[in-house]
Amino acid sequence: MKVGFIGLGRMGAVMARRLIDGGHEVGVYNRTAKKLKPLTDHGAKAMASIKDAANFGAAVVTMLTDDAAVLDMVTKAGGLKESLPKGGVHICAGTHSVAAIVKLTKLHGDAGQALIASPVLGRPEVVTAGSATMVVGGPPQSVERLRPLFAAIAGRVVDAGAEPVSAAAIKIANNFVLGCAIEALGEGFALTRKYGVAPDVFYGVLTEGLFGCWAYKTYGKFIADERYLPPGQSALNGLKDANLALAAGEAKGVPLPSGNVWRDRLVGAVAHGEGDHDWAVMAKDQARASGLVK
Amino acid sequence: MKVGFIGLGRMGAVMARRLIDGGHEVGVYNRTAKKLKPLTDHGAKAMASIKDAANFGAAVVTMLTDDAAVLDMVTKAGGLKESLPKGGVHICAGTHSVAAIVKLTKLHGDAGQALIASPVLGRPEVVTAGSATMVVGGPPQSVERLRPLFAAIAGRVVDAGAEPVSAAAIKIANNFVLGCAIEALGEGFALTRKYGVAPDVFYGVLTEGLFGCWAYKTYGKFIADERYLPPGQSALNGLKDANLALAAGEAKGVPLPSGNVWRDRLVGAVAHGEGDHDWAVMAKDQARASGLVK
Amino acid sequence: MKVGFIGLGRMGAVMARRLIDGGHEVGVYNRTAKKLKPLTDHGAKAMASIKDAANFGAAVVTMLTDDAAVLDMVTKAGGLKESLPKGGVHICAGTHSVAAIVKLTKLHGDAGQALIASPVLGRPEVVTAGSATMVVGGPPQSVERLRPLFAAIAGRVVDAGAEPVSAAAIKIANNFVLGCAIEALGEGFALTRKYGVAPDVFYGVLTEGLFGCWAYKTYGKFIADERYLPPGQSALNGLKDANLALAAGEAKGVPLPSGNVWRDRLVGAVAHGEGDHDWAVMAKDQARASGLVK
Amino acid sequence: MKVGFIGLGRMGAVMARRLIDGGHEVGVYNRTAKKLKPLTDHGAKAMASIKDAANFGAAVVTMLTDDAAVLDMVTKAGGLKESLPKGGVHICAGTHSVAAIVKLTKLHGDAGQALIASPVLGRPEVVTAGSATMVVGGPPQSVERLRPLFAAIAGRVVDAGAEPVSAAAIKIANNFVLGCAIEALGEGFALTRKYGVAPDVFYGVLTEGLFGCWAYKTYGKFIADERYLPPGQSALNGLKDANLALAAGEAKGVPLPSGNVWRDRLVGAVAHGEGDHDWAVMAKDQARASGLVK
Repeated sequence: MKVGFIGLGRMGAVMARRLIDGGHEVGVYNRTAKKLKPLTDHGAKAMASIKDAANFGAAVVTMLTDDAAVLDMVTKAGGLKESLPKGGVHICAGTHSVAAIVKLTKLHGDAGQALIASPVLGRPEVVTAGSATMVVGGPPQSVERLRPLFAAIAGRVVDAGAEPVSAAAIKIANNFVLGCAIEALGEGFALTRKYGVAPDVFYGVLTEGLFGCWAYKTYGKFIADERYLPPGQSALNGLKDANLALAAGEAKGVPLPSGNVWRDRLVGAVAHGEGDHDWAVMAKDQARASGLVK
Repeated sequence: MKVGFIGLGRMGAVMARRLIDGGHEVGVYNRTAKKLKPLTDHGAKAMASIKDAANFGAAVVTMLTDDAAVLDMVTKAGGLKESLPKGGVHICAGTHSVAAIVKLTKLHGDAGQALIASPVLGRPEVVTAGSATMVVGGPPQSVERLRPLFAAIAGRVVDAGAEPVSAAAIKIANNFVLGCAIEALGEGFALTRKYGVAPDVFYGVLTEGLFGCWAYKTYGKFIADERYLPPGQSALNGLKDANLALAAGEAKGVPLPSGNVWRDRLVGAVAHGEGDHDWAVMAKDQARASGLVK
Repeated sequence: MKVGFIGLGRMGAVMARRLIDGGHEVGVYNRTAKKLKPLTDHGAKAMASIKDAANFGAAVVTMLTDDAAVLDMVTKAGGLKESLPKGGVHICAGTHSVAAIVKLTKLHGDAGQALIASPVLGRPEVVTAGSATMVVGGPPQSVERLRPLFAAIAGRVVDAGAEPVSAAAIKIANNFVLGCAIEALGEGFALTRKYGVAPDVFYGVLTEGLFGCWAYKTYGKFIADERYLPPGQSALNGLKDANLALAAGEAKGVPLPSGNVWRDRLVGAVAHGEGDHDWAVMAKDQARASGLVK
Repeated sequence: MKVGFIGLGRMGAVMARRLIDGGHEVGVYNRTAKKLKPLTDHGAKAMASIKDAANFGAAVVTMLTDDAAVLDMVTKAGGLKESLPKGGVHICAGTHSVAAIVKLTKLHGDAGQALIASPVLGRPEVVTAGSATMVVGGPPQSVERLRPLFAAIAGRVVDAGAEPVSAAAIKIANNFVLGCAIEALGEGFALTRKYGVAPDVFYGVLTEGLFGCWAYKTYGKFIADERYLPPGQSALNGLKDANLALAAGEAKGVPLPSGNVWRDRLVGAVAHGEGDHDWAVMAKDQARASGLVK
């Protein structure tokens, strides 16, 4: 299948590569052209403009850093709204706010185009390994037709339904459940430390018991070892995720009290100069609140 | 090994059975005598008094419902403090507050006796299956000597260290991490439901992704199905656990903000007449706060 | 009117004095007898036993430090339940939990006696100045008959209704509203300090604006001046109040999220060795969480 | 003094009127011209363009509804940045985010102009009565020179210091303290109602006691009467204020846990269709969480 691809950052590059490796013809575009080279070396075709990318194949994928970037990409002169043909499909793969996805859905809809939101669960190395999950929301016929693309990128494709915003909500809520789990872990470790329990012992109780899964094994280890550098996801990025969740809740009338606690620990970490630490540094903020660290 | 055993409720009975099945000689005592029969039929010896149980073997195990029961068992006339010999060991196996464990440690210590706290992680059926975890805290020599008893009861024995209260803290913190996880799950499901996501879809994303462990699979299912009856652990019992955690935090200066959220959802469920529902009914309280259910 | 009075601590002493100054005959009893002297010098009659105090007049007032003390006073051999005549009235004036008041109501009721709960709002010096408020809950006829006693103690008497527990709830909720106000003040001051606002300026904006009342003037000043010693009410005592409120909420199904925040700040202060500071030290805990103080 | 004035909504109109009544010459501009008439009838001069307003006098005041409006007013072609002369002063009087004020400060600074932030505490009718407070932050010399303008608008002028953002922070924090107070009141009323206390009784205890100030008298009454229509400030507007506070906290590393509780009650109210009720409807959301109302 032929497909355009815009946004060759760390995540975009590995996604485009998987499309190529999956036998698809990929027309790549990036604002800074030097990022094209590794992909064209790998078999991609360089696109000279957004318009070219938008008209290269069955759809155009964007993998952009934030709401501002994707909204600009769609609405600016020469952007996707102008460039995509009637009936064209924009596969929006980044992590975006529900508000942005709703807006994009309307913008493309008004132009007779379709939006599919397809956020990815998993870091770039997980995508490369073929183990990522892609959550796909959009018009079922378009989703069905383009399924080979999703399948090429991700090991697992989850159908979120006909509304693009549903896919965004799933991604946001998945991060939410993770962030809250890490925060509560931090509380649990602070509590047991105060009672003389070695962190490794508590770690073992959890991960060999009810919590034998990636989230607890990975972040429980960071916390048990009090090792927050280098970061996987930074506290500042975690804060963005927390804000996405709280905004999504507000937009639909869902108070998220654990989300508040999650966010506050990140704000506290940032207040103490730890914004660039792994977001598991929430556990340090909890330890600080408990008088365990200065 | 010979061992006394006091408290043949649902959990006590299966624990005593495992001791017998493990080849130990068990002298059982219970306030209401009719509960002795199934155990004596299974090979236990009936004890006529607390004193007899306390002097039957290398130690005496108690498995009692709450702090009041175990404190009374130890301090009353004819109770364990009076009855245990110097050097005797009380293995306290229930879920108790840190305050109670600290008190019992001192009471027995003053009498030249030793306390081992050994709470069990896992429900009665898990104990029967040999898959429970026993967390053991107390004087290392006593713990070592009595290890065959712990090993007979539980599939996994975790050493919490020389302080009995450390074992209590681990049990409490394990429940804490679980309770907070369930509460946050409730928030995540309410959020995704509001965006039109089918609960099963979100359940799959979580449990086939970062959260492929018992806690999320079990409670995520209850929440996805909105099925809170019959209860495993009831909301009212969950509230007890939450209070144990918050009290443990207060005693050592550990604020537990996620613990507060956990507790509030249980209070809310009780306020709406759902105290006897499974504690996953927290998710219903969250749904109610979000206008999803009346 | 003749009245017995038990408990001559700091608050009890000034209350008994006001009764005497109001022309009543007061029969005083205290566990440690040396506290009787200042009162008998002032015109009180010393009672040799609880029984004597209980039978001295129209009612007996207790002003005891906590639940344990008053429950013991009522239930022990020679205590008030035994000593009060049928139809006798126990005026319970301390700050007690709703659970204790419910229990006392039943204990006295079972013995054909009556309980009136009459907590005092205001510190001892406020009582002396005649400016305290007494909240009175109990059987209306008894309350009416004994009104001269309440009026002698307090400048304002508030009728809480026929249930003693209603009076306890008002006292607890008044403390609750105060504690939450102080906590939120701490947040507001931390926020403005981070934006370069002099604390006195923000203090002025609040107290010359919407918040020109004792609570904000008094505690806003402590916070603006960062002066938490000597304490009026200590953080540890504030923590007791917070726990009374949360327990009252739990007993009737009222989640109290602001109450949790209030309590957590006190737990945090205690964790940092500030349990004996004024409870306005919550603002310091907030400042610490914000990276403003170490 | 001559002064330009842009933005004649409800609040802007009464402010402009006070300037005129204070003897100043006011050049008014509004996007929709029909709002000019009442002001020109009152003595104002109609300005044909933003540029005219910006160059009419010693400074130009804006009173616009939100961040987007004021940022657009400053940055658009023909906007204030283009139109104000070097050395010109923009007095920004609305309630804006700290981020917007920081941005405006830089925009004008880059153009050799000055920004003064001067949010108003008090509703339009309070401004008319001359009882409002204006909080002024900006370059001290400009503030001093323009003081007659502030004094004409508000009964009290508070100097926030040289940074415009300090004034914004004060306004935001004042709303914050108020919002948290109302929320906690709601909890207190729910608690006492559950113990059979008549709302008026609790209202009296508070407002005749420690809380005898406008905030508690006004909002306590709404809550005691359960009367949330018509709204003074709506729940939806309160939510904006809560978000301003949380964003201000995040930007400087100040976790605001009571602020979260405040925000969640507003989100809950909106979830139940009460977004247009007075923001004291938070108390109804609390009552709902407590099972007191459906």
